[in-house]
Amino acid sequence: MLIRPVRPQDWSSIWAILEPTIVAGETYALDADLSEDAARAYWLGADKETFVAEEDASILGTYYLRANQAGGGRHVCNCGYMTSASATGRGIARQMCLHSLDHARKRGYRAMQFNFVVSTNERAVRLWQSLGFDIVGRLPLAFQHPTHGYVDALVMFQSL
Amino acid sequence: MLIRPVRPQDWSSIWAILEPTIVAGETYALDADLSEDAARAYWLGADKETFVAEEDASILGTYYLRANQAGGGRHVCNCGYMTSASATGRGIARQMCLHSLDHARKRGYRAMQFNFVVSTNERAVRLWQSLGFDIVGRLPLAFQHPTHGYVDALVMFQSL
Repeated sequence: MLIRPVRPQDWSSIWAILEPTIVAGETYALDADLSEDAARAYWLGADKETFVAEEDASILGTYYLRANQAGGGRHVCNCGYMTSASATGRGIARQMCLHSLDHARKRGYRAMQFNFVVSTNERAVRLWQSLGFDIVGRLPLAFQHPTHGYVDALVMFQSL
Repeated sequence: MLIRPVRPQDWSSIWAILEPTIVAGETYALDADLSEDAARAYWLGADKETFVAEEDASILGTYYLRANQAGGGRHVCNCGYMTSASATGRGIARQMCLHSLDHARKRGYRAMQFNFVVSTNERAVRLWQSLGFDIVGRLPLAFQHPTHGYVDALVMFQSL
């Protein structure tokens, strides 16, 4: 599997990954009816570096990396990852996260922060912990899950 | 003192409050060289409701309120407050925060979150605690303070 910077022609493959995740509304705090144009502006925004995980010319996952804050907070980065539903369980997110940690160090970031990890997304929480992230904050009932109702969201952090 | 929605003609007074705070770089994670246009787009953005605290036709402070996340996180709001240096110590921030909590309840928000309170801004931390906010997260060394170096930032939260 190759992880490489996004190209404009990758968008339809990326949208095919993002759209079902956004519509499901279980893991990302994004409007379920987010338009394709708005999703593109978000995922490929000028404030971000976006990558794709590719195998045999198929895009299996995508992530972005950006500064989490400006000014005195710009040494901490933030990432978002999405994996194709057809490729879950194959370690794609783990490989993308390892790639992002390496890339963040190369860019000179001193830490990586996830602002809003939905607590019921237990597989993700365990994965991030296994990759060195600590839970540094808990936002009480900050996420309305479509089936579980109001659940906590977690702030996760790793120094680089 | 009257707290009221911002009007377009308030901007020069607001910028006179924001600019020295942004340039000082001690309390907000904003680029110190943020242009006036960018500051205006940020503080008066379409995603925000912005208010001013006015006394005798002078604007002594300003704050914004917005949803902190979209989708399943849109029931939690976020605010930013700035007080004129000439009016510090008079309880302007306290009055603006009380106003914002009341306004947030009217808007149907279920909680208010501050994402990035610089830990060395002790007066603010104490003030928010006195108004019901808890420290629910600590971001290690996430803010580079111009004189104190790398210091923690706090996530503060209050259910409404």
